[in-house]
Amino acid sequence: MFTDTDGKRKNVDFYDEAYDGVSFIEGGLTRAKGVRATGVHAGFRKNSSKNDLALVVVPEGSVAAGVFTTNKFCAAPVQVDREKLKSGHARAVVLNSGIANAATGTVGLENARKTAQIVAKTTGVGEGEVLVASTGVIGVQLDMEKFESGVPQAFDALGKDDGTDIQSGLEAASAIMTTDTVSKTAAVEFTATQSDGVQVTYHIGGMSKGSGMIEPNMATMLAVVATDCMIEPEAAQKAIKEAADVSFNRITVDSDMSTNDSLILLATGAVPGKTLTTDCPVYPLFVGALKTVCCCLAKQMAADGEGASKLVTVRVTGAASDEEAKIAAKSVANSPLVKTAIAGRDANWGRISAALGKSSAMFNQEDVSITFMGIPVMKGGLPLEFDESEASRRFENDEITIECDLGNGNGSSRVWTCDLTHDYITINGDYRT
Amino acid sequence: MFTDTDGKRKNVDFYDEAYDGVSFIEGGLTRAKGVRATGVHAGFRKNSSKNDLALVVVPEGSVAAGVFTTNKFCAAPVQVDREKLKSGHARAVVLNSGIANAATGTVGLENARKTAQIVAKTTGVGEGEVLVASTGVIGVQLDMEKFESGVPQAFDALGKDDGTDIQSGLEAASAIMTTDTVSKTAAVEFTATQSDGVQVTYHIGGMSKGSGMIEPNMATMLAVVATDCMIEPEAAQKAIKEAADVSFNRITVDSDMSTNDSLILLATGAVPGKTLTTDCPVYPLFVGALKTVCCCLAKQMAADGEGASKLVTVRVTGAASDEEAKIAAKSVANSPLVKTAIAGRDANWGRISAALGKSSAMFNQEDVSITFMGIPVMKGGLPLEFDESEASRRFENDEITIECDLGNGNGSSRVWTCDLTHDYITINGDYRT
Repeated sequence: MFTDTDGKRKNVDFYDEAYDGVSFIEGGLTRAKGVRATGVHAGFRKNSSKNDLALVVVPEGSVAAGVFTTNKFCAAPVQVDREKLKSGHARAVVLNSGIANAATGTVGLENARKTAQIVAKTTGVGEGEVLVASTGVIGVQLDMEKFESGVPQAFDALGKDDGTDIQSGLEAASAIMTTDTVSKTAAVEFTATQSDGVQVTYHIGGMSKGSGMIEPNMATMLAVVATDCMIEPEAAQKAIKEAADVSFNRITVDSDMSTNDSLILLATGAVPGKTLTTDCPVYPLFVGALKTVCCCLAKQMAADGEGASKLVTVRVTGAASDEEAKIAAKSVANSPLVKTAIAGRDANWGRISAALGKSSAMFNQEDVSITFMGIPVMKGGLPLEFDESEASRRFENDEITIECDLGNGNGSSRVWTCDLTHDYITINGDYRT
Repeated sequence: MFTDTDGKRKNVDFYDEAYDGVSFIEGGLTRAKGVRATGVHAGFRKNSSKNDLALVVVPEGSVAAGVFTTNKFCAAPVQVDREKLKSGHARAVVLNSGIANAATGTVGLENARKTAQIVAKTTGVGEGEVLVASTGVIGVQLDMEKFESGVPQAFDALGKDDGTDIQSGLEAASAIMTTDTVSKTAAVEFTATQSDGVQVTYHIGGMSKGSGMIEPNMATMLAVVATDCMIEPEAAQKAIKEAADVSFNRITVDSDMSTNDSLILLATGAVPGKTLTTDCPVYPLFVGALKTVCCCLAKQMAADGEGASKLVTVRVTGAASDEEAKIAAKSVANSPLVKTAIAGRDANWGRISAALGKSSAMFNQEDVSITFMGIPVMKGGLPLEFDESEASRRFENDEITIECDLGNGNGSSRVWTCDLTHDYITINGDYRT
C-alpha cells in the first residue's frame, strides 16, 4: 500500500500505530485537499538531479500555526515565520535545502523576507501570508537569484489540489532532504460525526526532513503538515504543540538541536464542515490524527538518523511522573555508550542501567527491570541470564526496543533514537570538505 | 623531567598550569611522604602482563575524604566507602580493574566488605579503615579468591614511604587502567610559611583512570590523591569537593556518567607541621595545590578519552554567570557534531554556535564571538573570513582550544573534552565481544 520510492527504507513498520478512529493512507502532504505542492531543482544543491526547492500553496482563508526551535542561534526564516504566524493565517510555504540561512545576520533576515516577496509576486498571495524555511549549511547567505528563477519554475510545476496528487507531495518531500537517505511522508484520514449528525471524512498529510543535529526540542529540522478541515487558529496552535510534544520532541539522533527546526501546520478547509475549536467533540479526534502523522514522520526521521542502521525505541515505565520517565528515556536514548552497543549488537543492560542512573529521574536500583527486544535482561537491579544467541537473532531486526521499568510510580514515556555507527563519524567528520 | 613510560601520550603540556606557589614534580601518588603503594596482577584481567590490583597504605591517624558518583546505579564499593568515610579516617585503599562490582546487589556489597576484610587481615589495619574501589565490567561478581591471593602479594610488593619511590606510584596507576591507553599521575610541592615563621614543604601526589563513560559529575571513574600535610577531616572534605568541581567535574568524553566514579583524598601528616583547618592561612595554598594535581589528572583523562586524537579545551566567557558559562561550555564539549568536526579537522563555528544556542545559557546571537585555536571565526554572531590553510596547520596540534564569548556578562568557565572518532565507535561497539 505504501510506496517505497527510495528503496533504502529500513524494514520497520512506521504505520503500525494510529490513534483511535484514524487510518493511514498512501502519500503525504497533498492528500489534504486544497494543498498544491511541488519540488524542483533551483540550484542550491550542486547535484542537478536533486530537488532543492519545495513550494506549498493553500487556498485563501487557510489557517496556519507552527512551533520552532528554541535554539538562541535560530535561523532567519525561523525569526520571520514566528512573526508572520501571529496572524494565524498563511497561503504558501517555500522551503529550500542546501543553505540554512542561519548565522547570517541582518542580510539573512532581509533575504528571508525577499524570498517571501518573490513567492508573493509569483503566486499572487500577500507577502505576509508566505512562510519560509531553510535547511543546510550554516553561515552562508542565500543566493536570491536561485529563488528568482526557481520559484516561478516551482509555481508552474504545482500539482493538483484535489487530494489525489500523491506524486507532487513526494516531490516536495524530496526537495527538503539534506543528509537524509530517504524522504519522509505520512498521511491519514478520519471520519468525524458532526453535531448535526453529518459524517465528514478529513485528511491530514505531511512531510519532514532531518537526520543529523536532531534532538528535542524541535527535532524535525523541517516539517509541514496540512489538513483539509477548518480549525480556529488558536486551536491549530494548541494542536500542533501537543502533537510535537509526543512526536518530534521525542526523537533524538545526536542530542544536537538545530538552529532551523520548524514545524508548520496548514488547514485548508477544502473539505466542507464545521470549523474545529478546542471544545468541539471532533477536536480530540483531529489531535489524534495529527499525532498519528507526526509520530509516523518522527519515527522515520529517527530511523534515518545519520549513519543509523537501526530504529531504537526506548520505553520507560514505573517512573514517578511522565516527565521523569521522559528524562530517563532520553538519557538512555542519548547515551553514546548505549547507542554504540546497539551498533555492536550487544544487549548491554549495564550501559542502559548506568544511563538511567545518571538521569535526574528518581528510583532505587533494586527496583529496576530492563527488557531488551522482549528478552528480560535485568530484574531487581540485577542482571539475568539470557539466551545470547536468541538476542543475536533479534538484533537482525531493523527495529530495536528497550523497555525499562523503574518501579517507582506510574509515569511512562517513549523516545525514538537510532544506533551510533562509524557512518555517523564519516558523515559528520567530513561534512564541509 | 616527566617520565613518559608509555610512549603513547599526546603531545600536550599537561603541566602548564599551576596555582600560585605550586610547582609540579615528577611522579604520582607516592611523592606524598607516608604513602606506600604498588600494583600487581591478581587475575581480574586476563592478560597476565597487566596489573589489575592496586594497594595504597598510609600511616595511623591519616585523614581521608572523598566524593563519589551521583549515579543511582552506583556500585557496591561506592556505597561501602561513603559509609566508611563518615569517620574521616582511612589507612588503606584497595582498587581493582576488570570488574566494576556494579549492579551486583547484596552479594556485591558483601564482596566489597570482604575485600576490605582481606586487606585489614593482611595489613593489620582496622576493617573500617580500608576503602575499596572497582572499575571494569558491570553486572559481574568479583572473584574473591583473586583478592585472597592478590592482596598479600601486593602487600609484599609495597614501595617505600619516604616520598622518593616514584616507580611504586606508577605501578599503582597502571593497575587501575581499563580502556585507558596511558596511566595518569601527577605530583606537586608547595612551601608554606606557618604562623610561627617556620617554612615547610608539602607534597601532593595522585593517580587516576578513566577514558570512557566520562561526564561530570564525577568524571574520573577512579582517582586517589594523597598529601603529606595533616588536615582536619572537615577541611579535607571541603577541599576535595572544591578541587573536583574545577577538575574532574569539568571533563567530558561521552556525557555518560559512571556507576563507580570515586575520588579519594588521603592526608598522611608525614611531613611535620600544623594541622590545616579551613581558616588557617595555609589552607588556600593547599587547595590550590590540590586543584593543580586534580586539573592535571583531569586533562590527562580528557586527552585519553576513548578513541581521542586530540585534547579539546572549551572556554566560555561573557556569560551571565559562571554557572551559565559552564552549561554553555559543556553543551559545546558534549556536542557530537562539534566533536566529529574536530576529528575531521574542520573549524566548524556553525556547529559551535548551534551548541551554544541549544544550552540554557542566555545571550543574544548578535553578541557572540568564537575563536578557534586563536583564529577569530565568528564575531557579532556572523562568520568571519579566515585562513583555512592556517587553521589546517593548527589542527596538526594535539591540543585544540575553542573560545566563545557570549557578550552577556562576566561569567566564565572552562571544560575539557576530546574529539569523537571512528575509534570511539570501534572501542564501544565491540566491547563485550
